[in-house]
Formats: sequence, C-alpha cells, structure tokens
Amino acid sequence: MEAGKRIEQCLTAILAPAALEGSPPRLLDAVHHAVFPGGARVRPRLCLAVAHACGEDDPVAAESAACAIELLHCASLVHDDLPCFDDAATRRGQPSVHAAYGEQLAVLAGDALIVRAFQALARAGERHPARLAPLLVTIGRSVGMPFGIVAGQAWECEDKVVLSDYQRAKTGALFAAATIAGAASAGADPAQWRALGELLGEAYQVADDVRDVAGRCDEIGKPTGRDAALGRPSAVREFGMSGALQRLRYLISGAIASIPACDGAGSLRELIHAEERRLVPPELSRRVA
Amino acid sequence: MEAGKRIEQCLTAILAPAALEGSPPRLLDAVHHAVFPGGARVRPRLCLAVAHACGEDDPVAAESAACAIELLHCASLVHDDLPCFDDAATRRGQPSVHAAYGEQLAVLAGDALIVRAFQALARAGERHPARLAPLLVTIGRSVGMPFGIVAGQAWECEDKVVLSDYQRAKTGALFAAATIAGAASAGADPAQWRALGELLGEAYQVADDVRDVAGRCDEIGKPTGRDAALGRPSAVREFGMSGALQRLRYLISGAIASIPACDGAGSLRELIHAEERRLVPPELSRRVA
Repeated sequence: MEAGKRIEQCLTAILAPAALEGSPPRLLDAVHHAVFPGGARVRPRLCLAVAHACGEDDPVAAESAACAIELLHCASLVHDDLPCFDDAATRRGQPSVHAAYGEQLAVLAGDALIVRAFQALARAGERHPARLAPLLVTIGRSVGMPFGIVAGQAWECEDKVVLSDYQRAKTGALFAAATIAGAASAGADPAQWRALGELLGEAYQVADDVRDVAGRCDEIGKPTGRDAALGRPSAVREFGMSGALQRLRYLISGAIASIPACDGAGSLRELIHAEERRLVPPELSRRVA
Repeated sequence: MEAGKRIEQCLTAILAPAALEGSPPRLLDAVHHAVFPGGARVRPRLCLAVAHACGEDDPVAAESAACAIELLHCASLVHDDLPCFDDAATRRGQPSVHAAYGEQLAVLAGDALIVRAFQALARAGERHPARLAPLLVTIGRSVGMPFGIVAGQAWECEDKVVLSDYQRAKTGALFAAATIAGAASAGADPAQWRALGELLGEAYQVADDVRDVAGRCDEIGKPTGRDAALGRPSAVREFGMSGALQRLRYLISGAIASIPACDGAGSLRELIHAEERRLVPPELSRRVA
C-alpha cells in the first residue's frame, strides 16, 4: 500500500469515533480538526521510508511509530497556535483549533493528542516487546526536555537563544525521531539514520522561516510575517534571505549525502527532492530572487 | 525505604537538572515548581501500596509507574489552573505555575510533564519488557480519551454532563490507573484492583467538591468556591452538603471492602483512613454539621 494511504488509514483507526466512544463530543471534534485533513505528513512518511529502507519486518510497529510522531506534531501545532503563543487564526488553510473550538478545547485537544500518540505507540511492542522501550525513549526525547519540540517552543520564552539550538529542538528533533524510530521499528541500528533526520529537520525549519517572510498566506495555509511580528529567532533574520536559501540547499544536499547505502535509498532521495520543491516552490524562489 | 521517600527520590531523579541539562532554564524551573513541593502524593502512594500488596518483584517498574502517574496528575493541575480554565492564582499554597511563570510556560510545562511521564515509564520495561505495553495502555487510558482526565476536563466544555461520568474521568481514572498499574508492575492480575481505584477516585472528587464549598483557602492551599463560580458539576450542588458527606463515607467503606485478601491489606486500609482524615478533617466536618 502507498505510504500516504497507510498513514491516513492508521491515523483514522487511532482516532476512530468507535474506538473513542464515550468521549466528550466537542473534544473529539477538536482532535479530528487538528489531524484531518493533514498537511504533507512528511514526518510519518520519512519514518515509513526509513523503516522500508531497513527491510521493514514489523509493519504495525513502523506505522505506530510513524503515526505517534504525526500526532505529536499535530499537538504541537495546536498549542503553538494558541492565543498566548502565535495567536494564529488559520492553519492548513482552515480555522486553527482554538479559532474553531475555543481556547479550552485547544489546550485539551493538544493534551489528548500527546497522550493518544503514546497510547498508539504501545502497539509497536505487540510483535517485538523489546522494541517498545527504545521507541518510547526516542519519541519521548524528541518531544520533551531538554531537546524536544516542547523545549524548542520554550526557548521562545527566554531572553538568550542560540538559533541552531532552538531550531534543532523545535523542528529537528521530531525529524530525527522519524528516521531513528523508522530504523528501530524494523530492528535495525538507528545510529546511522540520525544525521538524515537532523539535517532534514533543520532544512524544514529554514524553509519555514523563508516562507514566513516570502510566502503568501494562500500558498502556505497560515498567516505570514509572524516571526518578525513576534520577534522570534529566524534564519532569514540571521542570514538574510539569500543566505537562508543557500543554507537550505546546503542542508538538503547534506541530508541526501547522509543516506546509508541501502535498497530504499533511491525512493528516499525522491521523497526529499519532492519535499524541497513543496517547501520552497520554484515560483517562490524566483519571486525572492 | 518508606514510600513517600521513594516517591520523592524517584521524582527528583526523573526531573534532575543533570538529566535535563540543556533545557530552557525557565521551562525547567516551571516544571519543578509544578512538582515540588508536592501534595499528598496519594496516587503514587496508592500505586506502590498495591504493588507491595501484590508481592512487588520489580521496584523500578513500580516506581516508574507511580511517578508517571504523579507527573500526569501535576500536568493536569497546571493546565486546569490556566486562565482559560480555573484561572487559579494559587495551588498547594504557592503561586500556580501560570501565576509564577506566565501562561506560555504553564502550557509548555504541562506538555513537558505529560511527555516526561511517558519517558519515565519506559524504565518499567527494563527487567520485564512484556510488562511495559500493558502499563503504557493503562496509564494512557487514564489520561486520554474517552475516559481519562483530559476527557474529564473536556466535559466542562459541554452543555450536557452526567456528574458521575465527569467525576469518573476527571479524578477516578487516574486513581484506577494507580491501583491497576501497581498490580501490573508486579506481574499480578490487575482486574481485582480496579474497583479500589475507582471508588477511591470518586471519593476523592466528592471530598474535593466538599472542600471547595466548605474549606478555607489556608486549609486546602488553593482558592475555594470555584465550582459554583464557574458553574461546574459538583457533588455538593447535586446532593447538598450532607448528602455529599454521606456519599463520601459510603465510597470510602466500599473502597476498603474491595481490597482483596492479601498480606498488605492492613497497610492499605491505614493509608485510606489517613487519606479520609486528610481530605475532610474532623474540624471541617464539625463546621459543616
């Protein structure tokens, strides 16, 4: 089955109303609103692609890890959009969760998604119980303190921030988890897959900064100009627009070069190039230049 | 070692600055503020007491489960106190997390605590990998949808609420997790321990409602009169004060009667009676009567 379809099916099952019968109806709606329709699902795609490249021998483990990572990503978007942070009214071209359901349900939907992610992960131990703890540790680390996305967001509350630390935590960590968990779910040594995730994560954050400055709201599905408005660290602020684009190309090349020799290397390269075009479309690059 | 000391040592290790080196300093402070000094630590005490009664054969697993539950409880308090919910300025006799660190760090500290709880739980699989998944499922269920504490809080956002459903989710679920996880951490059959947790959880919620109406702020360490002010479901609103106190006694008796015959039954009974006196002190009972 095609990866995108596997991911949607798995997410749909994890959040199926039948599986969650008895939930407060508005909470369930808010959680669904946060997850469907999705964005590019790039993190779970990356996780499945690496699992495949490592000779995926446990599809349930790979899918559970991939979808746990996507749910954690969705949770972080819901909380980042809250009035006390970005106060974003739209996300993925539709009202943000707090705009649609209010602040209370946005806080709770984020919490519920974090919990659901770890519940979903439990299935990763069904066939190989010994693989569960390392997956739990890897994915937990990518979200929590000191270097996960929650810590990354918390750097916005500090006076002194090193841009690369902030980006590595806020975006890189979950990408690194995607590649490491992909390998671990297949029983492979995850160490050689870490660089790919970290480089892609940093590339993704740089691209996001570029789009925040140069993109149009209708192209990227959320308000632009937020980094400058909120005084947030940004690659464009630090390196200028052409410096940021140069850094993006450098990171993508490094990511591709880091892929270990394996059967799935070709399709991984394709996935990365497609993401590069999606993140900073040629039209946007031309406009900026 | 005495249970209270074990719990503090384990929580301290889980949140040790050395283990979290590199975290944003204010996030780390906010997380510590949320967990130390603690309340009565009744949930982790209950978890350890049940593990002991089941012939605890894996202290790391029991402590990991107990502390994961306590961290999840602390996380829920931090988010419940947020301005969009209770807007509570104090908690456990000190400023609430959002009052001390601001709303952003309160949201993030809650998130970080949820994640840290699941990370801590990973250690429960060290000696017996097959015990990890059931613990993860049990504890995840007690926090998430449809019947966990996040769902319980979300019932406050609905027009129609059944009081017992609300209380079971908001408070009972984590108590049930404490007894079930205590048994599961010791490799025992958890089924016969569920009733104890559920009954104690409901008792705890009723006691909380009583204290919210009849307690004094200096006695309970947080503002009183919030349920009525916020129009929340409450046992006192539903049954009146004497009906609520009667229900509390009934639930405590049921909890004690539910304890399976085992070596640790006596110390469990003591724990419950001590909690009963702590929750609704004789002085408060007399004042109400």
